[in-house]
Amino acid sequence: MKKKTTIYDIAKKLNITAATVSRALNNNPNISDATRELVVSTAEKMNYEQNRLALALKSGKSNNVGVVVPRIDSNFFGSVIHGIEEELNKNGYHVIICQTDGIEAKEVANIEALLNSQVDGILISTSSNHTATFDRIIKKEVPLVFFDRKKTMKNVSSVTINDFDGGYKATKHLIETGCKRIAYLSGDTNIEIFKDRFLGYKQALLDNKIDFNKEYVVQTKSTIEDGRKAVRKLMKSTPPPDAIFSSSDFAALGAIQELKAKNIKIPTDFSVIGFSNEPFTMFMELSISTIDQFPLEMGRMTAKVFLEQVANSENVKIEKKVVLEPELILRKSTRKITSK
Amino acid sequence: MKKKTTIYDIAKKLNITAATVSRALNNNPNISDATRELVVSTAEKMNYEQNRLALALKSGKSNNVGVVVPRIDSNFFGSVIHGIEEELNKNGYHVIICQTDGIEAKEVANIEALLNSQVDGILISTSSNHTATFDRIIKKEVPLVFFDRKKTMKNVSSVTINDFDGGYKATKHLIETGCKRIAYLSGDTNIEIFKDRFLGYKQALLDNKIDFNKEYVVQTKSTIEDGRKAVRKLMKSTPPPDAIFSSSDFAALGAIQELKAKNIKIPTDFSVIGFSNEPFTMFMELSISTIDQFPLEMGRMTAKVFLEQVANSENVKIEKKVVLEPELILRKSTRKITSK
Repeated sequence: MKKKTTIYDIAKKLNITAATVSRALNNNPNISDATRELVVSTAEKMNYEQNRLALALKSGKSNNVGVVVPRIDSNFFGSVIHGIEEELNKNGYHVIICQTDGIEAKEVANIEALLNSQVDGILISTSSNHTATFDRIIKKEVPLVFFDRKKTMKNVSSVTINDFDGGYKATKHLIETGCKRIAYLSGDTNIEIFKDRFLGYKQALLDNKIDFNKEYVVQTKSTIEDGRKAVRKLMKSTPPPDAIFSSSDFAALGAIQELKAKNIKIPTDFSVIGFSNEPFTMFMELSISTIDQFPLEMGRMTAKVFLEQVANSENVKIEKKVVLEPELILRKSTRKITSK
Repeated sequence: MKKKTTIYDIAKKLNITAATVSRALNNNPNISDATRELVVSTAEKMNYEQNRLALALKSGKSNNVGVVVPRIDSNFFGSVIHGIEEELNKNGYHVIICQTDGIEAKEVANIEALLNSQVDGILISTSSNHTATFDRIIKKEVPLVFFDRKKTMKNVSSVTINDFDGGYKATKHLIETGCKRIAYLSGDTNIEIFKDRFLGYKQALLDNKIDFNKEYVVQTKSTIEDGRKAVRKLMKSTPPPDAIFSSSDFAALGAIQELKAKNIKIPTDFSVIGFSNEPFTMFMELSISTIDQFPLEMGRMTAKVFLEQVANSENVKIEKKVVLEPELILRKSTRKITSK
């Protein structure tokens, strides 16, 4: 990069002191109009820019907020980020985004990069157990808000949906439509949201006197391919399941593709329900039942929690837990409730 | 934010000069081990951190690269960004992402935010005609590379696909399968990629002696809803078209939904081809023919062009134009070529 013009360069050029240049550029009334005009026009000619970042270093404010997500190319995170931007942009903040691919080392590096560029806050959906990084953010007193994939930490706010309820509702619906052997496609249960969905699933089974069968639980990534693989594995169980609750819409889609390839009729003989309400679940010919998480609302709430935090005096510790209620969306991949 | 500990604070605490603190922290050999150890342990106790950004200001290097795209939640841009990250991460750079929603003012603000956080380069798919912003990047000698949605600018490199060829291939295929009245769903023709796809479409018509009919051109955004609207409008023409080439897969999907709602048989009576090879085009029951743009490759190339640029001496001006060749992907929404 080109060496930046400094006030010293301007001072040298005009044969005046740097302090005079600084005062002139900052409209100090002790400087004559003639001098001010000379300094300003020289500064312009020399491409001088008051370094806003240097100002940020002094004032501790960059007006940039960092958002960290596992992936940017899902509708869910895309919508959350739109919600965040909507609120923050109108409050004068810019949003810069990093994705982690769900990899801890990448998440740590991203946070480091954001801290180094002096962001005013970090809003994160975490895939990491590396609490030292979060401690570092807190120690630096950079506002931190978790959304969706949170860590439970003291004095840190979070905006999530009730994943337990989501898992419970999805499973309960399958039971109410007559399914008896319900498999669960799980994400990484080290991540709280997936653990909670799993607990909701188990509780719904228990409340309806259906035995939990660990053979019916398959850990998948949120991909079509993993959904297909899971079905290939599950259909070897005896007896095979008659329904799948997938903690990811992508895996649900893969499951449906594989079930169709095996000529299994959906929803007559097999039901599938996903999680997230990704748009494709709606526009498939065999549209997919799923759980809506209100991502736009989640993004807006996350931004509001951040704004509240920065508006507060430094001595007030806020820990706000916002929990959104998920909603069951019924489509063609599950049966209608006939008797109740 | 908390006031940062400076070397002056450490100096005061230890009753030594700031210069000594600085030398100790920077392993200057003129400082005794005892002093160094005392300074380092005091710095740790006081939560001192060498401000890497301040270092960046001096060295002009932050190791952060900014990527600006119209939207993050499409597979196309998601994949380009993955390609960029793949190359840049292994070269020690972090990627921070901004989205513009295709709005010029937001793009300008994003670039400003990135410049303020001292990024080492800006890789952008632009929706803006505000060339002053690009001039500013160039003047600051921050490496700038366009990808996909480019501006033709002197001394600025770009990585694009041959959108003209893409438009030509899609249209030619429709003609070869017997379509006579081919409508075109256009994006914003102020954006070069959409203009080029349109020119390819027109050239294919011309080369096959089919009159261009401007009634068959509808400007749409890249959304399902705009695709539906376009079909409602087009089917009022006399005669109505018998095929659609859509410059966006999302609009193609909307068009197909609306055609189905009107009980028009695809591909028997009406053909549709999209652009981008978004994953949903493949996994629909009526899978959608489209144009593949090799986004991962585009991302990798964009990163490589950037790396080449920073590796070069400051006196060498590079202007590299990389053009990828798009590929026709044939699926169920267009007919097979029967006679040729």
